Amino acid sequence: METTTRRQFLKGMGGAAIGLVATTGAASLLSCSPKVKAAPGVPWPYKPLDPVAVAERAYAAYSEGGCMYGAFEGLIGELREKIGAPYDSFPAVMMKYGAAGVVGWGTLCGSLNGAAAAIYLLAEEKVAKSIINEVFGWYGTQALPTYQPKQPKFPQIPTSVANSQLCHVSVTTWSKTSGFKTGSPERAERCAWVTASVAKYVAELLNQQSNGTFKPAFAVSSDVSDCLSCHGKGGSVENVHTSNQTSCTVCHTDIGKGHPNQ
Amino acid sequence: METTTRRQFLKGMGGAAIGLVATTGAASLLSCSPKVKAAPGVPWPYKPLDPVAVAERAYAAYSEGGCMYGAFEGLIGELREKIGAPYDSFPAVMMKYGAAGVVGWGTLCGSLNGAAAAIYLLAEEKVAKSIINEVFGWYGTQALPTYQPKQPKFPQIPTSVANSQLCHVSVTTWSKTSGFKTGSPERAERCAWVTASVAKYVAELLNQQSNGTFKPAFAVSSDVSDCLSCHGKGGSVENVHTSNQTSCTVCHTDIGKGHPNQ
Repeated sequence: METTTRRQFLKGMGGAAIGLVATTGAASLLSCSPKVKAAPGVPWPYKPLDPVAVAERAYAAYSEGGCMYGAFEGLIGELREKIGAPYDSFPAVMMKYGAAGVVGWGTLCGSLNGAAAAIYLLAEEKVAKSIINEVFGWYGTQALPTYQPKQPKFPQIPTSVANSQLCHVSVTTWSKTSGFKTGSPERAERCAWVTASVAKYVAELLNQQSNGTFKPAFAVSSDVSDCLSCHGKGGSVENVHTSNQTSCTVCHTDIGKGHPNQ
Repeated sequence: METTTRRQFLKGMGGAAIGLVATTGAASLLSCSPKVKAAPGVPWPYKPLDPVAVAERAYAAYSEGGCMYGAFEGLIGELREKIGAPYDSFPAVMMKYGAAGVVGWGTLCGSLNGAAAAIYLLAEEKVAKSIINEVFGWYGTQALPTYQPKQPKFPQIPTSVANSQLCHVSVTTWSKTSGFKTGSPERAERCAWVTASVAKYVAELLNQQSNGTFKPAFAVSSDVSDCLSCHGKGGSVENVHTSNQTSCTVCHTDIGKGHPNQ
């Protein structure tokens, strides 16, 4: 069989073209229609990063635009320096929106939002999902922050385990653990260190993926899987559209040990 | 005074150049250093959009890549068609990461994540914050979905009020209200309609901003402001780093009427 199939032909065109096809359909590309206004695809090219350089850049960027921008720019800024195009066309400053769980709404921790955005830009979708699961799982169970910047504003920052990926839960848990108020400069420094910690961990995982050593290890805890066995997909109740989580009872504090019978 | 200050000079260069300055410093730009690898700034150019076309594009994009991609592509895809560059350089498919509160973690509703990302790309930061506040506030208090696509998979979809911006809370509340399981095709259709509804509302607000009629109206409810008077910035407890929210008690169900005395 010497016939080149459309799939083989497109494969030979490289990642960018394949991405383009994925968003526009092969027919549009092959016909070279001048009307095609397709967005470029992903993943974008990757080169192994120095995780400490990523962390330091993320820490600095936090001061300029908060947690989501910090984590995203820590990673993408390093690639912009190393690779140039297409990274120099990406308006990383837009990621400032995720600060404090999106402009102060306390939802998803911005460092995770920025990390996830960067990961989907840098890895094929199936791998990206696995890496995000690792990062989100790690964030929920790790005593954070794990990284101390080289020139910190405070010599020490207490750690806490968030048991959640939400800004509000993560920050309030840290505040209760550390005794510092959430409006304190120590809290802002804690979030800057967390941003650096997350960006560094993502760089380590992306490097592993790049050199073929990444091994997905995340699994939901038995606490969560027990809840999902009834409330999740296929369960008798099936009223929860969440497949991954660190803890259900961190919010559902009223669930007693006798549940569901009592 | 005929002297042109640096600020005036830069102002005359237009939005893109000003954005560049914001991320690199004026000195780098003015020296035309070949080493500058700066990301472009925001906001990107905007033209008034047809909100129904945005909603329909968002609905279709939901099927391709979920709620975050749906809302983002609904808005940015329309601008790509209308304006071309620089939108044709933006890899909108990366926004697939936000599906189901980021790859199934149930955190921030992806339609809001995609909307917020688009808003920060399209509006100056102060305005962007105001528009996001409107959208997040509306999402939390509105019976959703508000938009029925022209060719829906089901003729009717029940509505519910989320009282939250979180995927998990929004979907589970709808499931309990409607009686449909979260793994049902009706639930997926509900999320597609919500994605279209959010994208349409964002287009309406961006159009208002574009024609000078946008008036910020969002304010936190007295329930939330009462909680923040002690727990928020400057309060006696100050352990909550959230300035905006629809409801505290939607999650904190154990807070009795006698709190904080009982």
